[in-house]
Amino acid sequence: MSLTDAAPAEAARSAKAASHIMATLTADERNDALLSMHNSLAAARDAILAANAKDLALAQREAAEGRLNPSLVSRLDLGRKGKWEDMLQGILDVRALPDPVGRVVLRTRLDDGLVLERVTCPIGVLLVIFEARPEVLANIAALAVKSGNAALLKGGKESTQTMLTMATVLANALGKSSAVPAAAVQLVTRRDVVQELLALDRDIDLVVPRGSNELVRSIKADTRIPVLGHADGLCSTFIDTGVVDAAQAASLLLDAKTGYPAACNSLETLLVHEAALSEPAFAAAASALLSAGVTLRCDETSKAALLALSLDEVAQAKIVDAVDDDFDTEFLSLDLAIKVVPSLDAAIAHINAHGSHHTDAILTPSEAHAEKFMDAVDSAGVYWNASTRFADGMRYGFGTEVGISTNKIHSRGPVGLEGLTIYKYKLRGSGQAAGAYGEGKKQYKHESMAL
Amino acid sequence: MSLTDAAPAEAARSAKAASHIMATLTADERNDALLSMHNSLAAARDAILAANAKDLALAQREAAEGRLNPSLVSRLDLGRKGKWEDMLQGILDVRALPDPVGRVVLRTRLDDGLVLERVTCPIGVLLVIFEARPEVLANIAALAVKSGNAALLKGGKESTQTMLTMATVLANALGKSSAVPAAAVQLVTRRDVVQELLALDRDIDLVVPRGSNELVRSIKADTRIPVLGHADGLCSTFIDTGVVDAAQAASLLLDAKTGYPAACNSLETLLVHEAALSEPAFAAAASALLSAGVTLRCDETSKAALLALSLDEVAQAKIVDAVDDDFDTEFLSLDLAIKVVPSLDAAIAHINAHGSHHTDAILTPSEAHAEKFMDAVDSAGVYWNASTRFADGMRYGFGTEVGISTNKIHSRGPVGLEGLTIYKYKLRGSGQAAGAYGEGKKQYKHESMAL
Repeated sequence: MSLTDAAPAEAARSAKAASHIMATLTADERNDALLSMHNSLAAARDAILAANAKDLALAQREAAEGRLNPSLVSRLDLGRKGKWEDMLQGILDVRALPDPVGRVVLRTRLDDGLVLERVTCPIGVLLVIFEARPEVLANIAALAVKSGNAALLKGGKESTQTMLTMATVLANALGKSSAVPAAAVQLVTRRDVVQELLALDRDIDLVVPRGSNELVRSIKADTRIPVLGHADGLCSTFIDTGVVDAAQAASLLLDAKTGYPAACNSLETLLVHEAALSEPAFAAAASALLSAGVTLRCDETSKAALLALSLDEVAQAKIVDAVDDDFDTEFLSLDLAIKVVPSLDAAIAHINAHGSHHTDAILTPSEAHAEKFMDAVDSAGVYWNASTRFADGMRYGFGTEVGISTNKIHSRGPVGLEGLTIYKYKLRGSGQAAGAYGEGKKQYKHESMAL
Repeated sequence: MSLTDAAPAEAARSAKAASHIMATLTADERNDALLSMHNSLAAARDAILAANAKDLALAQREAAEGRLNPSLVSRLDLGRKGKWEDMLQGILDVRALPDPVGRVVLRTRLDDGLVLERVTCPIGVLLVIFEARPEVLANIAALAVKSGNAALLKGGKESTQTMLTMATVLANALGKSSAVPAAAVQLVTRRDVVQELLALDRDIDLVVPRGSNELVRSIKADTRIPVLGHADGLCSTFIDTGVVDAAQAASLLLDAKTGYPAACNSLETLLVHEAALSEPAFAAAASALLSAGVTLRCDETSKAALLALSLDEVAQAKIVDAVDDDFDTEFLSLDLAIKVVPSLDAAIAHINAHGSHHTDAILTPSEAHAEKFMDAVDSAGVYWNASTRFADGMRYGFGTEVGISTNKIHSRGPVGLEGLTIYKYKLRGSGQAAGAYGEGKKQYKHESMAL
């Protein structure tokens, strides 16, 4: 770990060189470094929280004067109940995960004395760009070290003092005895270099943004380096006809919409089969959502169906006309767009056209409908009778979450540590030439071997 | 299959819609389509070869007048011995491969009645850009159909007549009875639309270039869509000290350099440990290479060592001084750059700095050196005592090769059918809400289940 004020190209070059050393470290060496990181941060608690208090005071002033979003201030606060402990525990949790590196995933005997292995290995150099939350620094440094990657960290300016103190502490800790080279994890302190960093596609292999949709969107637009993440989370659920347990459907949809409206896996669009409009599940769900304060932005048909229910005035006032844009909007608030569709196919087509390929669900008693939905909907998560809110690395049992990806290659959906790895082919021979094989010559055995 | 003169955006949109149907087809439906494609091409042999003869005649005229590279003319010729049969057999070979789609690669019981699966699925829409070889059309259409992807095909203008005829034949065949929608595989006939296609990152998920380094390089520079492939294949081999079997080393290096000099997996740089300069393996290898007509572009130390051998005048004339650029050059010819390095670490550093991350080898009796080399060299293929020429999907036993990738995410090295797939998470529940789980509430089981 180190702090660097070097020019971005130089920082990236030194990170790349360090990545080649990281790739040779044993799991024990990487885990020892994680323990040092944890212990040094724990020992420096007071200094870090004092630095954090300075950042916080400045941010509060900025917020009071209207120059900073107040929600950012609370995210900055490392002193909030449990946050410090969670950050430290997070390092130990990452340390306890199985080693993602060096797993042999394919082993083939090409010939006697000529064995091919596909082995997982680090990707190389990560560029992590994050906003105010200073605990991301510890989290992402831990993920990088665990997965054997080098990383350049560029944090939001609001947490400058906290980050500088944390990075100094970590640099001292790792500098002493660790096998992890100092240049392997670098906090980039130079200002206004994000554009320059994003141009370094020769030395930086993957960008991991941690922050708002706007941050991710602007990064994706500005770089040729692959970006692991998602800009949008426009999740939909389709209520098919024949749903029997109305209370269950209502509680599932309430969870999906109101559990944490600002989350990327929250429900934004509800599609209803036209034959389900008059069924109890839809009415129960709508009532529950209205009672929870959700504004229902309805197309004409669904609005008419809802107004026919005997709802009180408060509820009725929350049933409003949808505009076209509502079906392309990630509200991140207590708003839900509702549209009636004539068929399963129409629901699938709507989601593929208007969704964000994040997570989409169908509520149906029909296995055939569910399976077709799950095959045809082109999203990272496709659910049958479950809330979209399950889309999460911890809930999936991955132990950690690097991000949720809507990419169509490499990693998709909630991404665990393995998203920070790739593989290489190791071929161990005994002097073979490829030209010795072929018609009328030696033949390949291509025997699959035990892993 | 269809031919389209539509605007690129429209073609891509219809391909995307077709991809959602492709994703629901069974393996039998996709394999039936492949059989139809094979049979229809076989039946239309005369018409296709007649069209090919027209392309060929035009190209020969262009080449004679110096407007076309003559090597391109022979690549155009579908009538060359075995080429037609190979093309047809290739479709059947792809058809016979295991289904890459629908494989469950992870299954976890999150809770009773709540099972998570990670299932392989097609990526979506491929854009395949290829040069003169018309057989690529059949090959890539087969790979796309087998893997459940939609594809836009854009071929070089030199094979226009052949491609139009083939695509028409395929369109008729698939149109009749196939479950594969016409828009799933489209030959783009409109001229000069490559730039436009490369801009369609919303509907096109992956670009697969088939052609020269220049083609790949220009595509990579011009698009934000992920590109599966490699621009360069600058492969190196390091002769460590202590290699005993000089004849074997010579034959391996001869294979690597001269087996097919224009191939991306051919040897371009030979690194020699300074202590190996006086060992028999180096002398034997150099003599063999010189005898085969290879020009050795040597640094000072290796040149001095070679000139001290008793070589004839013809051989001596092929020992020339290297310039710096030689160590960054993919010669694709009977030229080899030779450099002396003081250590294993120096060899690793040279390869990581000057190589193309394709395939690199070490010749050494030391297992420790070999393992360190294979961990530290950041290439798709890292070999111990084997020729770099083994880097090939067929030699690896993959049954087919979509390309060789030097990317650091998704697919690396020789890429088989699985490189055209990604995965999605299917979650089958029974009405669960995510908010029901947590501290003091229901607990996740996270039981790993049999696949």
